[in-house]
Amino acid sequence: MSQKSDKKRAISPTRQENYPEWFQECVKISQLAEPSMVRGCMIFKPHGCALWDEIKSFLDHRFKQLKVKNVYMPLFIPVKELQKEAEHIEGFAKECAVVTHHRLILNEKNELVADPEAKMEEPYVVRPTSELLFGEAMSRWVHSYRDLPLLLNQWANVVRWEMRTRPFLRTAEFLWQEGHTAHATQQNANEFALKMLDEYADFLTNVLAIHTIKGQKPETEKFPGARITYTVEAMMQDTKALQAGTSHDLGQNFAKASNIRFADDAGHLQYAHTTSWGVTTRLIGAMIMVHADDDGAQIPPRIAPVQVGIVPFLMKDANSDSILRFIDEIRMSLESKTYYGRPIRVEVDLSDDRASEKAWRFKKMGIPHILQIGGKEVETGMISLIERDQMDFEKQSMSVSSYLEHVEDLLDKMHTRMYVRSKTFLEQNIFFAHSRAEAITYLEKNIGFVECFIADDAELQKDLKEKYAVTIRCIPLQTYEETGPCIFTDKQARRSILARAY
Amino acid sequence: MSQKSDKKRAISPTRQENYPEWFQECVKISQLAEPSMVRGCMIFKPHGCALWDEIKSFLDHRFKQLKVKNVYMPLFIPVKELQKEAEHIEGFAKECAVVTHHRLILNEKNELVADPEAKMEEPYVVRPTSELLFGEAMSRWVHSYRDLPLLLNQWANVVRWEMRTRPFLRTAEFLWQEGHTAHATQQNANEFALKMLDEYADFLTNVLAIHTIKGQKPETEKFPGARITYTVEAMMQDTKALQAGTSHDLGQNFAKASNIRFADDAGHLQYAHTTSWGVTTRLIGAMIMVHADDDGAQIPPRIAPVQVGIVPFLMKDANSDSILRFIDEIRMSLESKTYYGRPIRVEVDLSDDRASEKAWRFKKMGIPHILQIGGKEVETGMISLIERDQMDFEKQSMSVSSYLEHVEDLLDKMHTRMYVRSKTFLEQNIFFAHSRAEAITYLEKNIGFVECFIADDAELQKDLKEKYAVTIRCIPLQTYEETGPCIFTDKQARRSILARAY
Repeated sequence: MSQKSDKKRAISPTRQENYPEWFQECVKISQLAEPSMVRGCMIFKPHGCALWDEIKSFLDHRFKQLKVKNVYMPLFIPVKELQKEAEHIEGFAKECAVVTHHRLILNEKNELVADPEAKMEEPYVVRPTSELLFGEAMSRWVHSYRDLPLLLNQWANVVRWEMRTRPFLRTAEFLWQEGHTAHATQQNANEFALKMLDEYADFLTNVLAIHTIKGQKPETEKFPGARITYTVEAMMQDTKALQAGTSHDLGQNFAKASNIRFADDAGHLQYAHTTSWGVTTRLIGAMIMVHADDDGAQIPPRIAPVQVGIVPFLMKDANSDSILRFIDEIRMSLESKTYYGRPIRVEVDLSDDRASEKAWRFKKMGIPHILQIGGKEVETGMISLIERDQMDFEKQSMSVSSYLEHVEDLLDKMHTRMYVRSKTFLEQNIFFAHSRAEAITYLEKNIGFVECFIADDAELQKDLKEKYAVTIRCIPLQTYEETGPCIFTDKQARRSILARAY
Repeated sequence: MSQKSDKKRAISPTRQENYPEWFQECVKISQLAEPSMVRGCMIFKPHGCALWDEIKSFLDHRFKQLKVKNVYMPLFIPVKELQKEAEHIEGFAKECAVVTHHRLILNEKNELVADPEAKMEEPYVVRPTSELLFGEAMSRWVHSYRDLPLLLNQWANVVRWEMRTRPFLRTAEFLWQEGHTAHATQQNANEFALKMLDEYADFLTNVLAIHTIKGQKPETEKFPGARITYTVEAMMQDTKALQAGTSHDLGQNFAKASNIRFADDAGHLQYAHTTSWGVTTRLIGAMIMVHADDDGAQIPPRIAPVQVGIVPFLMKDANSDSILRFIDEIRMSLESKTYYGRPIRVEVDLSDDRASEKAWRFKKMGIPHILQIGGKEVETGMISLIERDQMDFEKQSMSVSSYLEHVEDLLDKMHTRMYVRSKTFLEQNIFFAHSRAEAITYLEKNIGFVECFIADDAELQKDLKEKYAVTIRCIPLQTYEETGPCIFTDKQARRSILARAY
């Protein structure tokens, strides 16, 4: 069934017409977030906040199964502690919120200003990451090989003073988790970094219904100080890439900078091998850009804060009580069922709005199942179901008992359809370039990911970035061992993916 | 059974010897938190972070049952938006972290400093509360009576630049929840504020095992701008009071300042009636100060991140495998059981430390049940149980099957003992003063709460605060209607509680 082009859509412009503007509008009408009075910061509305809470809850549960423990580090980092890093790390991120005073005062013009008398001796920055604080703590918490592995994580807000911001994708403040672990050997650390990469890829596949490519960043793109940076790259509907999560094998570099040492079983002091790994509220941006359509969000059913939205059709002359009783029974039956390990989440829209408005609101919000229930449904014992991912929202009529019997299966089929759609889209928009000419044709057409043998060469990559705005997104792990002559330089190279990216 | 005074305790000084120092030491050895390199901020260690996560999870579940929805507001507040409040509100809190620059730079001396070129046009403060941002959002989200009640909450970190800090009780950064609601009538708002007060009191009683007095703050102590401030006051082991949660009926004051208006059913614009309510990581401070002893924390069983700590006694010559298998079976049996709505949480200490060290670590951390299991236990099918709240940790020997059968009941009895201990302590240390002379005797002796009829009079209270460092903590709701002549001024007054407080 194809989407009729003449049908009125909720979002203008459409994805086709203007993808970036469509995205902004989609965030708004899906009720996930809205801009705030604070530059570059957004308000997570109830729907968006609940979605992030679900994401947190899923990932946190997985981390705990891997014996990772949560800690909470201070919001501030003393500038003097950053000094060493700034001197040594090229590309040290300096765009951050600097706290210089600790009091406001009304001045002689009755204006509220930073009190000059309350200038801090030592200024602070609001954490852009808590790496430094984790390093300091780990250096105190690790003494012997018995303390290893030390597996820590933090859920927190962080701030990076970005010049151009976009909701969920790039905001001054964002929410994330940062994992930091220390291990006795390089092999252990590397295995753990890869394990977390797998966790992220699994979560994207099995919960967010987003297909990703697991890969390793080239030297030019890896995290400063990392031995190896792993990434999961996803393709948005405009065929641009989005890095959905990263996991770093930091070797001993970070342990040396933070002095994380342990006595091995022979009593010799050794530097630990560390990892770090994180995902952010960007995941919600990715979810929108992969799944949403011109009518709003489509939230994958396993993570949707509301999985079934019920719209009562209440006529003034009909018996509202019996309709509401019927709905309440359905709600309770659904809530007593378990889907993907949790009770099914239902919302009944009891507002005074018209039924059609309520249904549209649920559609825009991306609720997976929308049930419309009125007098006719009560009489016949039938319900009208709209599955959010189906084109043009064709209603299906089915008996209540059949719906209740199959609801988990219906939700799960939607998950599968959404994942397959994401996977197929990526596969249809990735092109293998056998030669330089072929690659350039693809790059000029700007039509997706370009896979090719390409050298990990800074000059070459700078050139491609300038000409086509692309970077090497990753060397896919699946074909990591394949090597061949670089199509640009003829040097021996790995099979890699070139793409524009968010 | 009395605690023998000659027995060596884990904490020096003891509560008797120096309560404030005991508290600091108790926080440390209980593994809940530790100081950080950031002035006035602490690190929540895994045990403390897990405890706060449990508290959040319990309260959040309750809030959701009351149809409260979570949102997330930006970390920063523009100083210019605070201007109006600062001009009008006496006692407007000005001690906060002021963000003035958005970039660091290495200067000519190679020092990392705030870049003078990156001075913000509009400075920000790090939120000391998100009241102002909630007000702005609510003014946009509320249009008609159909949008009411609007019930919102936020879990977040906030910052107040305190001069003297103490872990959990007063820190520059702390974690909290702030609820903000809007209602159509004064009665609805007041009822909701009281409902949240009841929630807090119930949570303290039924989860933290802390007895509290629900009351109303006198005019002199209420939140600036509130119509009525409600509070739950608890008594610490040094007989000082701690305000464990507050709930404010803000009348229309806040709605007028933020322009939160709605069209009533006749179409007339009216100001909403709002509430706000919150608890913070202080609750953990209260839990320590109410329950802990000279050997460390005592975590109430319903909230303990680990409810059963298992210490394997592994001798080198014994069959460790069979002991560990036996322990694993017990662990799995426990984890398959439910206590207070959740699976029982178990930790087996498999470290290389000596068994006695492991048991001590669990005791200091305040784990409710500590099981010691070695070769003898495997042979006999018995376990040794230590209940953390029992004096001198007398071991009880019981069969595994009996323990597994009764574990929920044993944990629940511990909860009851802890709650009763807290309630009895408060009741034994609250004194009713019939006269000024009697009150002054109590106040000079500094021995607990003093209850009396006392006028809500600013001068009188200032005087008492200066002389005895006490404030009116609250007018208990239970005896709110009782009035009598003030023992100090003879004016008609309500029955209130005077105490020193944290």
